Amino acid sequence: MSAKPNRSAMRPRRLGDVATWDLETDVAIVGFGAAGVCAAIEARAAGAAVHVFEVAGAHGGCAALAGGEVYVGGSGGTPIQRAAGFEDSTEDLYQYLLMNGGPGADEAKTRLYAERALEHYEWLVAQGVPFKGTYLPGKWLEPITDDTLIWSGNEEAWPCIERAKPAPRGHAPQLEGWGAGRLLMDRLASRAVDLGARVDYNSRALTLIVDEANAVKGLVVRIDGKECCVRAQRGVILCSGGFACNDAMLKQYAPGTLVCRTPITAGNDYGSGIRMGISVGAAAIHMEQFFCTMPFYPPESLVKGIFVNDLAQRFVNEDAYHGRVTQEILRQRDARAWLIVDNEIFDRPVINPDVVIAGVGDSWEEVEQEVGFLPGSLQQTVAAFNVAARESADPLFHKQSKWVRALTEPPFAALSFCASDYAAMFFTLGGLSTLPSGQVLTPDGVNIEGLYAAGRTACGLPRWGDGYSSGLSLADSTFFGREAGRLAAAGTS
Amino acid sequence: MSAKPNRSAMRPRRLGDVATWDLETDVAIVGFGAAGVCAAIEARAAGAAVHVFEVAGAHGGCAALAGGEVYVGGSGGTPIQRAAGFEDSTEDLYQYLLMNGGPGADEAKTRLYAERALEHYEWLVAQGVPFKGTYLPGKWLEPITDDTLIWSGNEEAWPCIERAKPAPRGHAPQLEGWGAGRLLMDRLASRAVDLGARVDYNSRALTLIVDEANAVKGLVVRIDGKECCVRAQRGVILCSGGFACNDAMLKQYAPGTLVCRTPITAGNDYGSGIRMGISVGAAAIHMEQFFCTMPFYPPESLVKGIFVNDLAQRFVNEDAYHGRVTQEILRQRDARAWLIVDNEIFDRPVINPDVVIAGVGDSWEEVEQEVGFLPGSLQQTVAAFNVAARESADPLFHKQSKWVRALTEPPFAALSFCASDYAAMFFTLGGLSTLPSGQVLTPDGVNIEGLYAAGRTACGLPRWGDGYSSGLSLADSTFFGREAGRLAAAGTS
Repeated sequence: MSAKPNRSAMRPRRLGDVATWDLETDVAIVGFGAAGVCAAIEARAAGAAVHVFEVAGAHGGCAALAGGEVYVGGSGGTPIQRAAGFEDSTEDLYQYLLMNGGPGADEAKTRLYAERALEHYEWLVAQGVPFKGTYLPGKWLEPITDDTLIWSGNEEAWPCIERAKPAPRGHAPQLEGWGAGRLLMDRLASRAVDLGARVDYNSRALTLIVDEANAVKGLVVRIDGKECCVRAQRGVILCSGGFACNDAMLKQYAPGTLVCRTPITAGNDYGSGIRMGISVGAAAIHMEQFFCTMPFYPPESLVKGIFVNDLAQRFVNEDAYHGRVTQEILRQRDARAWLIVDNEIFDRPVINPDVVIAGVGDSWEEVEQEVGFLPGSLQQTVAAFNVAARESADPLFHKQSKWVRALTEPPFAALSFCASDYAAMFFTLGGLSTLPSGQVLTPDGVNIEGLYAAGRTACGLPRWGDGYSSGLSLADSTFFGREAGRLAAAGTS
Repeated sequence: MSAKPNRSAMRPRRLGDVATWDLETDVAIVGFGAAGVCAAIEARAAGAAVHVFEVAGAHGGCAALAGGEVYVGGSGGTPIQRAAGFEDSTEDLYQYLLMNGGPGADEAKTRLYAERALEHYEWLVAQGVPFKGTYLPGKWLEPITDDTLIWSGNEEAWPCIERAKPAPRGHAPQLEGWGAGRLLMDRLASRAVDLGARVDYNSRALTLIVDEANAVKGLVVRIDGKECCVRAQRGVILCSGGFACNDAMLKQYAPGTLVCRTPITAGNDYGSGIRMGISVGAAAIHMEQFFCTMPFYPPESLVKGIFVNDLAQRFVNEDAYHGRVTQEILRQRDARAWLIVDNEIFDRPVINPDVVIAGVGDSWEEVEQEVGFLPGSLQQTVAAFNVAARESADPLFHKQSKWVRALTEPPFAALSFCASDYAAMFFTLGGLSTLPSGQVLTPDGVNIEGLYAAGRTACGLPRWGDGYSSGLSLADSTFFGREAGRLAAAGTS
């Protein structure tokens, strides 16, 4: 298997150049990750023949490496939200998602998702995904207990809390320890196979096949070293992930990621689906956006610290989601920032316990000198913070009062979250422009017949790095994968 | 003339669907702005038949509204630089441009340009563009005297000054008053016509014509309400500007512009060339990037003020180019910032003399209260600034000492540069991925036969809003327009 796709193969093949069809199906799906499995399930459920081509040797894609949270709520709340005492209106979910979609938010997708997220949760349960049903308070990256429900975004942080009633919406499958995404994907993949989806692993999609009118009629795949032409009677769904592994694409489309050093990927996010879409005239939008993180909690005590840049200025409310905080860190000069703590709240971050301790001292002056801040600058920032913190207030950044306390117990320390000291993790959020149905669009908003996309191959609900919440990519991929599967199955391209 | 392009027409037309050719030429050029005129001149000079299609009723495009500076230097310096005592090495020009191309800078284009910028200047002179040859010291947006040479970028500002020896490189045609871009375009357009380029005005390019192998063979244009199929024997060059007028594209590709309210355009930057390129599989890159400005100088005395955000924090070295300062302003919370001045340096900005004065007072406390900063915050920022300023130092942002003085002479004031008070001007920098030759590329780096792009339809040297310098877009458009014209003329698509 070559690490990089064949360059010349990315041109679409003309229908007239296809001598014989090696395989025929109704719906061809590229990729058997979160979007692909759900597309397969729904297309099969609608009675279509389904053939999945997965480049890896197993199902799951990037999703199988994830915590497995799915961001759901609305309609009054999931049974789990309600059991834990949280009401969650559709409008609050809509407003939250719209705000966190950023200035390029997709109102139609957001509306559809908010209205149907509860149904989507129930559908996941019906597919055999186990949710224990218990709520885990506090700030977590994912539940490493077997609990279900966590706060996984910016819901309780300013400014979101002022514009939408907060509720925890990260719903994770029941698993003790890290990585319930594997369990989620196992169940969904089994379900797709049980329903009769045919899956070829180690098969690489090479290019689309189009007719004279640019309608997609199938694709070319390489299976066991042999090129096969696949006729897809009803459509092709591209679910092959983002482009976090493709350095050339990152430089051209998302150079902001270059300072991050750890792509979140199962190793195949080369942007092949996005490039196949572009090859037939699709728009690829918000390509500069990405999720990134240098997780600094848990332990949640660290949320009570304050982040400062190289001028010892604060720049963010530290109770925001770790992904938003990291976006802000990367915007500081030379992507440098430090988490300032005192002895009472200090603990090693669960992720990256070997965090670089850039300065430590019995006075702020000592910390200041060790890190190399300008004389007086850190002392002044901490002093100003402490004055308001004694009143549990943060007039600068509106950190919520439960996370605000004065930093007064020596020794004090500065933990480095400079991008040079901490290999930030990232994946890409830009992708093909699609309708909520998954139909792929040109820049003029015309759909390309026979072509669908979902998951990180498309630009979905998560399209603004500052607005990411854990579980949003899985929610988007599974939900809109279903939509694409259903619509493609009904299509007659 | 419809304001917005026909949606369905943007699909490329198949060669087989062309019944007859209404027009034939060697090189067809879409747009008669800075890139188009230079492409036309060079293609004619190389002996090709040239036909230009311009949607407006006159030549010039956006360039005719500009100050007319062309960013040139290197090779020891232009005659004007040398006469004014500035040496300018090719390597310094290269390093400056590379740094200001941002993390996605194009090394090949930058290298070629740095090596040939002096020749390009001489070529402009040879086309009849008049340069008086005199140097105008100080900080200007463009020379409103008839002088030639000004500082037009970040050359003398930190961090550029530490990495490349600075030289003024903005070269403007000789014209008293604003807008020498009109003169530049008049001369170049006349030259193209004199050389025998055929130009149709009021003619809208609708779509490209491609053969079975996706090679571009011509285009469809609408002239006097009639669709014409144009055969381009050697190639089509897209020079139709950016997409600053296209709200749908701005939202999908460059939502950061939405807070700006004044597109810099002659009214036809609908992204049609970019969309035509996408329709045949081209990559459109760095689409989120844009130039923007809320000019705050001249008068240059205002450069001695300090910008603060809504926390009264400084965030930029105020002697940076106004475009870079404006990018930083837009990044501050809610795109709010104020220029803090004292009586000695205060004057009304030449552009926007009616700037909102958000606070004024005989003490900083009064200004603080009037604007609504947190108590003490502005006082503290100014006090810290003044302490260092008395030593002509700016340890925080490295503003160069000639712009640093303590702000001590009452009355004091805060001038609003909040995006809500000041309609920022912008144009887009993202566009089609091209080789230095102008050949348009797919995301895999394969060139699309017969298709070229230049100017803001392509992604050129200016591809990072923070690194823009006045004269860079004109330099890029004219230089790479020439390259495309020359290569297309030599081509045989």
